[in-house]
Amino acid sequence: MRVVVIGGAAMGMGVVAKLMRLDPTIEIVVFQKNDYVSLGACGIPYFIGNKFSDSNIMLARKVSDFENNKVKVFTNTIVEKIDFEKKQVFGKNNLRTIAENYDKLVIATGGTPITPDVISQKYENCYTVNSKEDAEEIKRALPLAKNIVIIGAGLIGLEVAENISHSTSAQISIIEKGQRPLANLFDSEFTDLIEDELQKNQVNLIKNSEVIEIKTIKNKISEVILKDNTKLKCDLLICSIGIRPNTDFLIGSELKLNNRNAIIIDKTGLTNLADVYSGGDCVQTFGRTYDNPTYTPLATVASKHATIVAENICGAKKEFSGTLNTAIVKVFALELARTGDNLQFLENNKVSYQEVFIKDKDHTNYLPGQENLYLKIYKDKQKNTLINAQMAGYNNAVLRIHSLISLIWTQTNLTSGINEIDLPYAPPFSRTKDIINIALGKIAEK
Amino acid sequence: MRVVVIGGAAMGMGVVAKLMRLDPTIEIVVFQKNDYVSLGACGIPYFIGNKFSDSNIMLARKVSDFENNKVKVFTNTIVEKIDFEKKQVFGKNNLRTIAENYDKLVIATGGTPITPDVISQKYENCYTVNSKEDAEEIKRALPLAKNIVIIGAGLIGLEVAENISHSTSAQISIIEKGQRPLANLFDSEFTDLIEDELQKNQVNLIKNSEVIEIKTIKNKISEVILKDNTKLKCDLLICSIGIRPNTDFLIGSELKLNNRNAIIIDKTGLTNLADVYSGGDCVQTFGRTYDNPTYTPLATVASKHATIVAENICGAKKEFSGTLNTAIVKVFALELARTGDNLQFLENNKVSYQEVFIKDKDHTNYLPGQENLYLKIYKDKQKNTLINAQMAGYNNAVLRIHSLISLIWTQTNLTSGINEIDLPYAPPFSRTKDIINIALGKIAEK
Repeated sequence: MRVVVIGGAAMGMGVVAKLMRLDPTIEIVVFQKNDYVSLGACGIPYFIGNKFSDSNIMLARKVSDFENNKVKVFTNTIVEKIDFEKKQVFGKNNLRTIAENYDKLVIATGGTPITPDVISQKYENCYTVNSKEDAEEIKRALPLAKNIVIIGAGLIGLEVAENISHSTSAQISIIEKGQRPLANLFDSEFTDLIEDELQKNQVNLIKNSEVIEIKTIKNKISEVILKDNTKLKCDLLICSIGIRPNTDFLIGSELKLNNRNAIIIDKTGLTNLADVYSGGDCVQTFGRTYDNPTYTPLATVASKHATIVAENICGAKKEFSGTLNTAIVKVFALELARTGDNLQFLENNKVSYQEVFIKDKDHTNYLPGQENLYLKIYKDKQKNTLINAQMAGYNNAVLRIHSLISLIWTQTNLTSGINEIDLPYAPPFSRTKDIINIALGKIAEK
Repeated sequence: MRVVVIGGAAMGMGVVAKLMRLDPTIEIVVFQKNDYVSLGACGIPYFIGNKFSDSNIMLARKVSDFENNKVKVFTNTIVEKIDFEKKQVFGKNNLRTIAENYDKLVIATGGTPITPDVISQKYENCYTVNSKEDAEEIKRALPLAKNIVIIGAGLIGLEVAENISHSTSAQISIIEKGQRPLANLFDSEFTDLIEDELQKNQVNLIKNSEVIEIKTIKNKISEVILKDNTKLKCDLLICSIGIRPNTDFLIGSELKLNNRNAIIIDKTGLTNLADVYSGGDCVQTFGRTYDNPTYTPLATVASKHATIVAENICGAKKEFSGTLNTAIVKVFALELARTGDNLQFLENNKVSYQEVFIKDKDHTNYLPGQENLYLKIYKDKQKNTLINAQMAGYNNAVLRIHSLISLIWTQTNLTSGINEIDLPYAPPFSRTKDIINIALGKIAEK
């Protein structure tokens, strides 16, 4: 069997690594746009912030690791066309065209950072946060920058802001279109904490705003102008307003995309075309609780898709179990974690819900380092199951969201005994009655 | 209604506090042996270790808090007899006898520390770790002690050893009868880590040993002699070999005790006698997974018993959901958590099990502070559910055991998708594939 994989990140190389283990006789060919594979792009904010200095550390595996196992990897090669009928993929490497036949095809082209409309061309000091090259260039540009503007207060924008602030004394501004940072992940009780934390650390968050104009000198941006006419000096502009499926080359082909150009797959990872699989940041996947289609470009999802696709190529019939859109993020000292369908989803889908919000402490008052701990949970009133949990706290205390993730994952009925769930207690770790037990007791009664 | 409560710790005052909220018309009388109530005894090791200086901080509530709410509290009063027929409790306060009638009785006398047979009388420099007075005396004795001997490497013994070591330069020895510290809670992969941690911190753990003789000068212990004839100088002896139900005054009465003198209750907290309830460290309770009788003297269990008993006194029919014997402990930098029935239980009850042990890391390699993380899980092969989980790690990383506790609690079937459970990932918190996902994948395949 001959498998062609387009894309060399978490999904693509995840499939390859799993295939190698499942069946060493499979011929594998990879097309990869960069000269490296297996970039853990989640590391970029930390690399930029000088937590480590060698960008290659972000590469989970090297090209040679695969080549030594007889995987053919075409690096610096962009796929321009697929002939699904003849089962042939056409890549371009410099001016050379490479054509490869497949028995099974895996499209793992991932996502492309979205750039705001106002950035209509490539500027020397304007970056997205997606590739090793971006990361290296931002890091080189940093020491000279006095005014840094980040567009987008999402996970990446916030991580970049924090990490940059540790390694420069530049003024950092984040321009957010919405009313709150991370508005699609956290309710206002939590985003208020983020805003406080940013302010405490001199990061200038400007909400309800947009860059509507840029001033440039030569090919560099020198100033951004916001919609209320505020002018911000800018030596370095970082765009982190999200990603979209990297599927432009598939538009108009037989391969079915959704209305946002994400590839439509079933739970086995199969597209509408026989022998063509996909997964990761270029697909529409499934929500765990309501089985709804969702676009969830997360490394954890890509890694699970990779395993399932590889197993199914080898004859299994595994199905993806769904995503809760679980996320965790550190914003300076503040840590936030969340899981499950958000309020907007619940309202759009007319889910009848109840919520409980609790502010408590992470451990006993008589030990040093006691910190605030915040928890919000939602239940589906009709199903009587948990559907969403959000936490904020310090020093890894939010890891106890794990218990709620399991309860949501298993769609456990909120019977009256649920608040007795036997969670660990010792003075350095929790209070006798943990915030989770308290919240479960309250929501079960509602 | 008139409720008499014997015992003023977590269980007793937990019942009182809940009753006060549920029905302010209830007359409540408390008999308490100390002059305080609501001691959080789990704080004692930390108080001894100078993490805080006012022992009253360990009191969750004051006697006056209850008296102001019309609760009659007899402090320094020991109950000597109960006339279950006449529904009367007799307490002794100095030489005065107090008799109180009840409609409902709650026996919440808790546990008494076990002292080794070799300690046949009270010595001036020999303590258990159970009361505020013990704690204060140990703390006073510490600065003068050059050689401290702790008998018993259980949770309390280890916590005391660590905390003492932070505040003195004395030589600390722990004498453990068994082959391993915490042998009833953790397998050897974990207790080996504890032993390493103790050694690294100059705590002398002597296993498979026992104090068989003591030398005294006046009323003070000066030396302990172990069974292999090793002699250890001793200025301060702390006994932490466990607790037993504090039920001596009930032996021979109509109240049913088990063969270890724990009060037998049903899941509602009712004893064999009408209108007599009990809970906490003086009762035999129930295991969650196999519904087996178990003695589990933990603050978390007592607190849950208290709530249920109070609700049932007021007419509810709540049942205790069972314990997993969940525990967490910090031994110097090392943190350990565990939940579920232990190996000995599984073997005694001929449960057919599979286990998986994994050593991994707590977060991405490119961020500072990456530490080892250890996980062992057991499944019941017949039921195909998880039954035990043990973790060790650093910096609160073991809190992710929460996910496994929920899976054990809900007796979730280990289907093939269980390893996809959507746990949070970001570089400071985990690796893309968390140790929990890895372990669940492996155990589901077994």
